Amino acid sequence: MKNQIGNNIYSLIKKLYPINRSITGDGNRLTLNIIKKIIPELKILEYKSGTKVFDWEIPPEWNVSDAYIEVENKRIVDFKKNNLHLMSYSQPMNKYISLNELKQHLFFYKDMPDAIPYKTSYYKKNWGFCVSYNFFKKLKKKKYKIVINSKFNNRGCLSIGEMLIKGKSKNEILISSNICHPSLVNNELSGPTILTFIAKHLSEKKNFYSYRLLFLPETIGCITYLNKKLKEFKNKFIAGYHLTCFGDNGDFSIVNSKNNNSYSDKIAELMLQTKKNKKKYSFLECGSDERQFNYAGINLPVVALTRSLYGKFKEYHSSNDNLSIANPKSLNDSFNFIKDILEVIEGDYKVFSKTICEPFLSKKNLYRSINNNKTTIDERNMFNVLYYSDGRSISDISLITKINPLEVIKIVNLLKENNILLLKR
Amino acid sequence: MKNQIGNNIYSLIKKLYPINRSITGDGNRLTLNIIKKIIPELKILEYKSGTKVFDWEIPPEWNVSDAYIEVENKRIVDFKKNNLHLMSYSQPMNKYISLNELKQHLFFYKDMPDAIPYKTSYYKKNWGFCVSYNFFKKLKKKKYKIVINSKFNNRGCLSIGEMLIKGKSKNEILISSNICHPSLVNNELSGPTILTFIAKHLSEKKNFYSYRLLFLPETIGCITYLNKKLKEFKNKFIAGYHLTCFGDNGDFSIVNSKNNNSYSDKIAELMLQTKKNKKKYSFLECGSDERQFNYAGINLPVVALTRSLYGKFKEYHSSNDNLSIANPKSLNDSFNFIKDILEVIEGDYKVFSKTICEPFLSKKNLYRSINNNKTTIDERNMFNVLYYSDGRSISDISLITKINPLEVIKIVNLLKENNILLLKR
Amino acid sequence: MKNQIGNNIYSLIKKLYPINRSITGDGNRLTLNIIKKIIPELKILEYKSGTKVFDWEIPPEWNVSDAYIEVENKRIVDFKKNNLHLMSYSQPMNKYISLNELKQHLFFYKDMPDAIPYKTSYYKKNWGFCVSYNFFKKLKKKKYKIVINSKFNNRGCLSIGEMLIKGKSKNEILISSNICHPSLVNNELSGPTILTFIAKHLSEKKNFYSYRLLFLPETIGCITYLNKKLKEFKNKFIAGYHLTCFGDNGDFSIVNSKNNNSYSDKIAELMLQTKKNKKKYSFLECGSDERQFNYAGINLPVVALTRSLYGKFKEYHSSNDNLSIANPKSLNDSFNFIKDILEVIEGDYKVFSKTICEPFLSKKNLYRSINNNKTTIDERNMFNVLYYSDGRSISDISLITKINPLEVIKIVNLLKENNILLLKR
Repeated sequence: MKNQIGNNIYSLIKKLYPINRSITGDGNRLTLNIIKKIIPELKILEYKSGTKVFDWEIPPEWNVSDAYIEVENKRIVDFKKNNLHLMSYSQPMNKYISLNELKQHLFFYKDMPDAIPYKTSYYKKNWGFCVSYNFFKKLKKKKYKIVINSKFNNRGCLSIGEMLIKGKSKNEILISSNICHPSLVNNELSGPTILTFIAKHLSEKKNFYSYRLLFLPETIGCITYLNKKLKEFKNKFIAGYHLTCFGDNGDFSIVNSKNNNSYSDKIAELMLQTKKNKKKYSFLECGSDERQFNYAGINLPVVALTRSLYGKFKEYHSSNDNLSIANPKSLNDSFNFIKDILEVIEGDYKVFSKTICEPFLSKKNLYRSINNNKTTIDERNMFNVLYYSDGRSISDISLITKINPLEVIKIVNLLKENNILLLKR
Repeated sequence: MKNQIGNNIYSLIKKLYPINRSITGDGNRLTLNIIKKIIPELKILEYKSGTKVFDWEIPPEWNVSDAYIEVENKRIVDFKKNNLHLMSYSQPMNKYISLNELKQHLFFYKDMPDAIPYKTSYYKKNWGFCVSYNFFKKLKKKKYKIVINSKFNNRGCLSIGEMLIKGKSKNEILISSNICHPSLVNNELSGPTILTFIAKHLSEKKNFYSYRLLFLPETIGCITYLNKKLKEFKNKFIAGYHLTCFGDNGDFSIVNSKNNNSYSDKIAELMLQTKKNKKKYSFLECGSDERQFNYAGINLPVVALTRSLYGKFKEYHSSNDNLSIANPKSLNDSFNFIKDILEVIEGDYKVFSKTICEPFLSKKNLYRSINNNKTTIDERNMFNVLYYSDGRSISDISLITKINPLEVIKIVNLLKENNILLLKR
Repeated sequence: MKNQIGNNIYSLIKKLYPINRSITGDGNRLTLNIIKKIIPELKILEYKSGTKVFDWEIPPEWNVSDAYIEVENKRIVDFKKNNLHLMSYSQPMNKYISLNELKQHLFFYKDMPDAIPYKTSYYKKNWGFCVSYNFFKKLKKKKYKIVINSKFNNRGCLSIGEMLIKGKSKNEILISSNICHPSLVNNELSGPTILTFIAKHLSEKKNFYSYRLLFLPETIGCITYLNKKLKEFKNKFIAGYHLTCFGDNGDFSIVNSKNNNSYSDKIAELMLQTKKNKKKYSFLECGSDERQFNYAGINLPVVALTRSLYGKFKEYHSSNDNLSIANPKSLNDSFNFIKDILEVIEGDYKVFSKTICEPFLSKKNLYRSINNNKTTIDERNMFNVLYYSDGRSISDISLITKINPLEVIKIVNLLKENNILLLKR
């Protein structure tokens, strides 16, 4: 079936969409448990509120049972209808206020008058409601009842999903995405749902490398994980990718790692080159957890994989980033992009010619027996791969010959079967 | 006389043009002996059929006394009229066949309806005739008599021409070309004939470097030579060039060596830069014996020098690549291109300033005595050469100052005579 | 007051403009003494005529009391009216000559018919007068009286101004300019006058580096100084700039050092990048004392700072390069350009993050407490500076983030005050 995996990813997005998520809370736990049904090996790690993690502290766990604005006994704004209405980490509240006071706690986008903004106030005590500008304009001088049934639990936890897949080698590929966004799709339900099916795909096959797949609350979750686990895997790190804003129809894009010279960058760029429409952002435009991975003292050159980048698409951080922004086809393509990158890393052997001078291909039926002046592309590619099979890696051969790395792998395997090339890790 | 050497080369091409050549055979021997009359120091090396050379084996020697197609007692295709008519390495044959059977052994170019193709079948038993498409179209249902008086001698030899010229240094410059093409001019009688006169030129003067000049049957001849002789010269190799398709009026061109960073590349590129019309091909477009020289295990960074490259000119591998494609002027220019490259290599000293700060040029009559604001180009060049005479080589000075390397040599010699610069190897 | 320093520089130029200067002579001494009134620490060094300096010899000191051409008892050309009229280093003369003989000693620019050229003949005995082409055209067949009251003193001296400013470190920044031009403004009164006020500025503040500021007669003065003093400071050299043609409204420009890879180049280029209109010349276009500093055996990578470069502006070496070519604004800007370069060098610490992962900025009021999708430039810059504060220098951070280096210094200082960054030399 066409876009089968894309369909599965989209179904999962639809299931997770209504859940309220933040950097902590039951919504995150529920999200991880739904994902765990697809990849049962997923571990849900819990880190206690108040724990010091580098320069930060895990905040109290935040949960909301209800939140609304009522006027004349009518709910005019209701968290239960759209969780974006409530600013994340809003303090509990139950009072009547004037329109003037209310206005200081209302957020809207003038340039997207129908959209509900997405706002948070994790580390400064505050409360607020997010509404459309069109709604805001119509508010009249009345008494407004504000109800926020939120709880801050100092003995709560921050939840992280971690899935480790053992390969032949102890060395690891890291892939992460974020689970802290409420009803928002490109940024960011696309990331953890694609990652879920990547995890499923990897767990169903034999891998050379081990994999560390992380479902993180952005920033604080990433910092917590690095604080607790970096030592465990730092020396095993081979390459790493962070999936963010990875679900819409935008051009395939990457945000390079800080020094733009890592193995993560190299392979992502090789696959990016095979795409017709593509964008490369420097680390100067970083914005998600690639910031922490690449930070001084951590130094993991993680590359962000994205379609329409944070801040670069108009629906960003608004209720317009909803189920209509992604579709099975776009999700399937994104899935394949990261899957292909992993395939190249897995197959990235060093290649040695077994012959001195060209092999005698005529006897192996790999060569035209009658010469002609129209060399086919495949034969030219085969020869160019041969010429650079001098101990170079497949990724380096792809780089220099400009042949799609998956095609290089195909050619190398054919030549290996014909006893012409030797492969080494 | 204008184009004197070009005239001599063109005369030699005309003499060699009618001879049938292949990867082995008496035609090659005759060709080498005619060349030997011009450069008597040429050695003709013979390697026996059946000899294993790396992954290959030298094939039986192939000779043809006659070959034709006869219909109603009339020769309609005759090898003696144009040796391109017979596919190289055709099996002996003497039989009557139908038009249908004949058609499976006829080769033509639909897009060059008047031209006879050039075809070979060195390593797969076969036979064939090459004809113009216009001829082919007119063939009727008749009985055709096929006669191919060819002989395959398992005790024959493959012939290679080798000329070694001793210089002051044991270190060597290698130049090669191919002698396996029958009546074809740009590809490739131009190569061995220019090489002949380069050999004559070098043998008539004192050289710093030693020279290894090779007249090779393409691929198998090159592989044979490398198999037998590589150890003898590998450690002496300084730079190498392969002449191919080097005789027509096309832009001066080079095919870079595999890693595009060798001394061969550097000097060829410096001279190429002095040409108005020029082309640079990457090794991904290689096609002649530069393939073997650059191959893993050999690793000699040989650069191909060419005008209209193999496969890039319409007459390629057809009877249109005939005496009209080259002329004394084009051949003279090609000769000078390689001669100039060798002159730069021979003169590529390291240059040291004998003064600290600029020399006092006024007393040497090398400098205007009255300043003016119109510095002539020569004076500017002289100063720029001086500034970079800090132990750099002449080729590096040319690279950085963008002055023609032969002009740098002239300036450096003037300054050396004036006791301002010191030259070291 | 706007352009205060530019006004001061322009006043100094006006004071120095009428004085006759050459590579030696009382005019140079007077110039240095006027400058010394502004920067009393200036030392005036005197080197004797006849002294051998590398390949050169200091010429006799040359002074002129009067020089003119008289016809029918009327002075038609008078050195006292414009010192450009007399070719520098003209021999003494007192005789009547014909128009024909005179013409061999007259210099003019046909393409600038109103301008008096600037000509010298330091090292070849000669005499000459420089006149406008319009004047020249009108000369008639008459007897001309030539009077040149010049003296060549073999026991004279060549004068150099040197100002050393001690900083915390022994390591030095070198800045030089030339004092050998008579009534010419862009080339070159702008250079020594700007350097005077740079000297004043540096001597009034605390510096980390020591400074070596040189007022040199071009070429022979520079060679003399390097011959006598190089050993004293070669190992302390950090960066160096030569100011030349630095006073007009031309684009800010640099002439890169010989190898274009020095610290001098890096910092000058960083500041150049902040300018809207700018030019970069390679060392192949060098023309002033950067030639000697960069020469083999000296190897000080000095970069020339300039506006309209020698030979690139139409007034060059003519009486049109006069007081109208510069103005307080242009001089102020030039002063600031070199002042800013020095500020970046002084502040070019290595920067280390004190946190692993991003710091928790919310508690330091350095970060928005409510997220929004319009990150201000400053915040983005602050983050990008943070990401690259991994031991890199401020200049490297500026290079990679493309943020003005003075802005990087500002951001780094703010973050240092907030205990987030650590600075080391």
